[in-house]
Amino acid sequence: MKIAVWGTGMVGDTIGSRLIELGHEVMMGSRSATNEKAAEFVKKNGSKALQGTFADAAAFGEYIVNCTHGVATLSILESAQATDLTGKVFVDISNPLDFSKGMPPTLSVVNTSSLAEEIQATFPDLKVVKTLNTMWCGLMVNPVMLANGDHDVFLSGNDADAKAFVTEHVLKAFGWADEHIYDLGDVTTARGTEMLLPLWLRVWGATGVGAFNFKIVK
Amino acid sequence: MKIAVWGTGMVGDTIGSRLIELGHEVMMGSRSATNEKAAEFVKKNGSKALQGTFADAAAFGEYIVNCTHGVATLSILESAQATDLTGKVFVDISNPLDFSKGMPPTLSVVNTSSLAEEIQATFPDLKVVKTLNTMWCGLMVNPVMLANGDHDVFLSGNDADAKAFVTEHVLKAFGWADEHIYDLGDVTTARGTEMLLPLWLRVWGATGVGAFNFKIVK
Repeated sequence: MKIAVWGTGMVGDTIGSRLIELGHEVMMGSRSATNEKAAEFVKKNGSKALQGTFADAAAFGEYIVNCTHGVATLSILESAQATDLTGKVFVDISNPLDFSKGMPPTLSVVNTSSLAEEIQATFPDLKVVKTLNTMWCGLMVNPVMLANGDHDVFLSGNDADAKAFVTEHVLKAFGWADEHIYDLGDVTTARGTEMLLPLWLRVWGATGVGAFNFKIVK
Repeated sequence: MKIAVWGTGMVGDTIGSRLIELGHEVMMGSRSATNEKAAEFVKKNGSKALQGTFADAAAFGEYIVNCTHGVATLSILESAQATDLTGKVFVDISNPLDFSKGMPPTLSVVNTSSLAEEIQATFPDLKVVKTLNTMWCGLMVNPVMLANGDHDVFLSGNDADAKAFVTEHVLKAFGWADEHIYDLGDVTTARGTEMLLPLWLRVWGATGVGAFNFKIVK
């Protein structure tokens, strides 16, 4: 499959490399078609890796994985409108972390809304699926590295088919088992997962361990 | 030990009854010294159960467990100032849930502060320890009822001695094992645990199960 990965940071690199490892072609999108980090990604991953602008990548991919900074996502989507995004599945794994007020970051959208909701409201033709945003990227793509995968991932979105697609082609492909995938409901449920980040950051601070995840014990 | 439990709802009743079962004397505090629910609590729990105003209970107890509605806590503390609260350990297990805008509730304090911080800032002589606010009350007092206790509880507060006291006399007394108690740090870390509530509510909504808890898998 042809997939767009937006963002050249550690998350984009991890997701993109893993998708290539699984046999897909990935175009890494960034503001510039000649971004240096994207060029490194291409060099490292061989012929199945490409690079381009956000719009280029969106046009290339059957779906988009958003690994950009959450606070930049809306403006990036606006910049990418040269490409028709109608009906495109948008896997939003970002968080609206605002570092401008110092550490730890706060959330730029919170409580009465969420980044996923803002994206969905601003781009109603996009099929936003929020997932994977509650953990370190190494675990996103390889859950079995920790406790043989005995921990959980959440899913929020308005479109049932899009969620089924992401479950099958992203989550299960990465190694997530059905019983560890929680479909929380419509896109408003992303408030819950985005608001987990402050606790994630505090657990990380208290334990010094980033390779942890949350599990629902019931 | 003599303990104040503030609040006559299900949480106060559960916490108070369990503390009595453990051999303590509990005064349930409410706005009125003759509150009917507190009277039922006293009738049900026998001679070790008492009732009074919030101030009466605060004067009686060596420490206070706050089981009131989070959004009412600051005004209740103001109303209880007939009692000297200096140095008193205040176990805050409430959440600042605002139901005024419909369901699911939002948080009345969030992101750049937390209820625990507001309490600590407004009543600096109180030793605020935030804990147990991330789960259903049945699990708070009896963690081994679920997965033999293999799930976690968090602790936030500025006073190390107060946290050690609560760990020993509340959490471990209720059955929490050391390895399941996460001291996240100072009172600002309560932002993380209070902001877990929106996710708690969504998991509850998606699964229909309230007797669940979060576990840190690492």
